[in-house]
Amino acid sequence: MNFCSHCGSAQLVFKIPEGDNRPRYICSNCGVIHYSNPKIVTGCLPIWRNRVLLAKRAIEPRKNYWNVPSGYMENGETVEQGAAREVLEETLAKVAGLTLHTVFSIPHINQVYIHFLAELDKPDFGIGEESLEVRLFTEEDIPWKEIAFTSSVFTLKHYFEDLRKGRREVHMGGME
Amino acid sequence: MNFCSHCGSAQLVFKIPEGDNRPRYICSNCGVIHYSNPKIVTGCLPIWRNRVLLAKRAIEPRKNYWNVPSGYMENGETVEQGAAREVLEETLAKVAGLTLHTVFSIPHINQVYIHFLAELDKPDFGIGEESLEVRLFTEEDIPWKEIAFTSSVFTLKHYFEDLRKGRREVHMGGME
Repeated sequence: MNFCSHCGSAQLVFKIPEGDNRPRYICSNCGVIHYSNPKIVTGCLPIWRNRVLLAKRAIEPRKNYWNVPSGYMENGETVEQGAAREVLEETLAKVAGLTLHTVFSIPHINQVYIHFLAELDKPDFGIGEESLEVRLFTEEDIPWKEIAFTSSVFTLKHYFEDLRKGRREVHMGGME
Repeated sequence: MNFCSHCGSAQLVFKIPEGDNRPRYICSNCGVIHYSNPKIVTGCLPIWRNRVLLAKRAIEPRKNYWNVPSGYMENGETVEQGAAREVLEETLAKVAGLTLHTVFSIPHINQVYIHFLAELDKPDFGIGEESLEVRLFTEEDIPWKEIAFTSSVFTLKHYFEDLRKGRREVHMGGME
């Protein structure tokens, strides 16, 4: 942030606003305080007969790595709607009846991953614009060293662990 | 947004960037795309012997209304850390061992509320800077018409419902 998005002034200072307890960009010209907050990455692991649908990323970061279909939540949608949208965009699969599975915070990059599970009615999917390949994996097939993000490893590990235990839970996690 | 925060230009256009599917503010001068995404409001309902700790808001919006201690999640923290921080700021109570309780989306204002539950070790609390009053409520005592936000009503209703059922679940909800 080099200029105030409200008045265009370059006179930004990074300091603690009155009554606050942490520094923010404040415009010395118009007084507007510019807040910055974590973003939500929302996604869903589609399931077909205990196999999970992953997408190989066609874009950076982590191009060529496999991922739980996920992306930034957009304004104007619920977390569940965002997750279903990401699945559709990346794998062309339609998911419904999403159940919450993991919430994973990554404080150093200001992100919170929220992942759902959804059973596919039938194994209908394809290769979305941001994907190179889309396929179903059993636990044994998962290319653990080629998974794009820690949040997806967390989601996958817990899915198969819950499957073995015969019960589903919501799992909280994060990187410190 | 009137000016580009990167280069200071007023030549912003609101259109769909190449390869994207929804409009964003794009700077015609330097090309930077300005994304806007939903914010997380994180909070926690502290519990003492089946009574819940609420704070009466000293600030707008909804000044003088009772609320589950909550506030905007900040950069550099996990969702759980943010919730514990909000409880401390608003009620001076220290909470640990938070368990996820509700995730509530409000698409029209681009917010996602994430509320936890935490048992207090002892009923130690006080009145934080942003609060007018802080107290424990039984279900019968709750001033339902004076609860600040729909997300808090959702959290409280489900807490007492789960209590009657003798089991705790994570509840997804939202306003359309």
